[in-house]
Amino acid sequence: MTWTTSRPLAVTPGEAAGIGVELAIAAWTRRNQRIPPFLLIDDPARVRRRADIIGAVLPIEAIDHPSKALAVFDRALPVLPHDFAAEDVPGAPDPANGPATIHAIERAVNMVRDGQASAIVTNPIQKEALYQAGFAHPGHTEFLAALSGPAVTPVMLLASPELRVVPVTIHIPLAEVPRHLTTEAIVTTGRITAAALIRDFGIAQPRLAVAGLNPHAGEGGALGHEDAEIIAPAVAALRADGLDVRGPLPADTMFHAEARRTYDVALGMYHDQVLVPIKTLDFWRGVNVTLGLPFVRTSPDHGTALALAGTGKARPDSLIAALRLAAEMAERRAATANAEIRG
Amino acid sequence: MTWTTSRPLAVTPGEAAGIGVELAIAAWTRRNQRIPPFLLIDDPARVRRRADIIGAVLPIEAIDHPSKALAVFDRALPVLPHDFAAEDVPGAPDPANGPATIHAIERAVNMVRDGQASAIVTNPIQKEALYQAGFAHPGHTEFLAALSGPAVTPVMLLASPELRVVPVTIHIPLAEVPRHLTTEAIVTTGRITAAALIRDFGIAQPRLAVAGLNPHAGEGGALGHEDAEIIAPAVAALRADGLDVRGPLPADTMFHAEARRTYDVALGMYHDQVLVPIKTLDFWRGVNVTLGLPFVRTSPDHGTALALAGTGKARPDSLIAALRLAAEMAERRAATANAEIRG
Repeated sequence: MTWTTSRPLAVTPGEAAGIGVELAIAAWTRRNQRIPPFLLIDDPARVRRRADIIGAVLPIEAIDHPSKALAVFDRALPVLPHDFAAEDVPGAPDPANGPATIHAIERAVNMVRDGQASAIVTNPIQKEALYQAGFAHPGHTEFLAALSGPAVTPVMLLASPELRVVPVTIHIPLAEVPRHLTTEAIVTTGRITAAALIRDFGIAQPRLAVAGLNPHAGEGGALGHEDAEIIAPAVAALRADGLDVRGPLPADTMFHAEARRTYDVALGMYHDQVLVPIKTLDFWRGVNVTLGLPFVRTSPDHGTALALAGTGKARPDSLIAALRLAAEMAERRAATANAEIRG
Repeated sequence: MTWTTSRPLAVTPGEAAGIGVELAIAAWTRRNQRIPPFLLIDDPARVRRRADIIGAVLPIEAIDHPSKALAVFDRALPVLPHDFAAEDVPGAPDPANGPATIHAIERAVNMVRDGQASAIVTNPIQKEALYQAGFAHPGHTEFLAALSGPAVTPVMLLASPELRVVPVTIHIPLAEVPRHLTTEAIVTTGRITAAALIRDFGIAQPRLAVAGLNPHAGEGGALGHEDAEIIAPAVAALRADGLDVRGPLPADTMFHAEARRTYDVALGMYHDQVLVPIKTLDFWRGVNVTLGLPFVRTSPDHGTALALAGTGKARPDSLIAALRLAAEMAERRAATANAEIRG
């Protein structure tokens, strides 16, 4: 896929003391490696400072409007100026920079809504450093959903070259998973996932594989009742929608190469059930995608890596994969929208 | 490793209607591919019948004592005669054959105890077909432990070329995992595992990686209390034993290639947490090993595959891996015992 877009991706800085800015620098220096044009929302002086710290030699150019990014991208890293309250110290988050970190995300959302950017790619944030600034969300995903309106149900999809997965429950204790799991949640997640695979991933008839909750998907009830009572009815409801859905399947035999060829996305019932296989197969190139938003948003599938900040050693693989996937999704979504307008 | 043993492995037939006998035939036909010598406890006429059904051409030789197996193995599949009550129909288990299936396992145990076999390799059984014959165990592992005496705690280890894993809880509903998990169970499992890696796997100072129960190993208590309250004390107790143990670790970042190089075995808290990564990485060559028994026992890491029985299409990869691993473990255990006697 080559990039036909007339708009840049909007990249947020994430935690100022983290590796986000270094990843953006590393991605831009590889711009000839099929990196879609992007702009970084950040303080140009700060970007220069961090580039110097990690020994990166690159031109940086402040732009006064997102529309300038594409023309600049070939010759310099386009930075849309954004002020931070305090000078950042790599590895040491400063709560004083919390408001600017949050505001950068809001700016990116506004940009994509106003048609100035094609999609959002967010660098990792450190939630603890944002709480003092009034951040009241479990994470990026929920914040972006809140910015998008009350009717939005965000769904987290993780994509790697080997596998796409969606956890139905995410950041809750394992003991709470069985009682949080509902047929309705699985159906809603499955519908949003299928719609996104059609619209944003170009898969006309997506195949969904739904994992069981218990060992061997409950082994006919001998190892738990949720597979038959909660998950099977959800699979039936999704099939009644006309979707290609199988399950509940024993999770342990779902993720080897032959099994993976039989579906386009695996729905798991809890965090580790799907995070384990995707990170086992490809630790570096996983991308976190939020489905169900009115815009395309991806992010690297890792944290702020404070211990690596300032070393230049953080691998940009995941950010690069997130940039490429965001651009692909945005172009497909635009093509679908155009086809609908023309049709 | 070449085989220095003077005793054969004892291979059980498993479910007579299943693929066990076909796997043994397939393994023998590849005997030049570093297959350790084994005998099959089975009815020679039945073995011949199944060989004909799947179109396998091979010499079969009935032996009247396990000691004859090694001399025979180069020229024919050595079969120690064992009577089944009914003629087997591939794919259709007959409860009439239950007693003989169970008795074959007992014969293998007696053989290895009497020094006539070096280790046991069991083919898969169909528990439902054995219940009428009075089989009262959840599976092979518990039956072998019961045959071994009251003080035996069996531990299931799964080994593949990529990874070794041990689940602390196994065949219970996911909802019951948190309340079944105890510090004592993790410590006992860790000790038995470490002892086996030293004695049977030749790893002088085994490195154990212990998974957390919750997402991100509980994220400091925000995502569950068991990691800090149940698992961390177990890790501390195992360290106090002088063992090289780390944890609780976030499960999703434990199984990629770089992470795997940092340990010799991963202890997981429940079935899918460790079965998912090992089967994702190598679906065909996983071996099930029972640690904590007074003898070496391995088995293929799959079921009876009734749908494949009689087709000759079942892949013998896992049985072959189980044969090799059993022989390696038995030779190491014998070498350790000899060293102790000499020392």
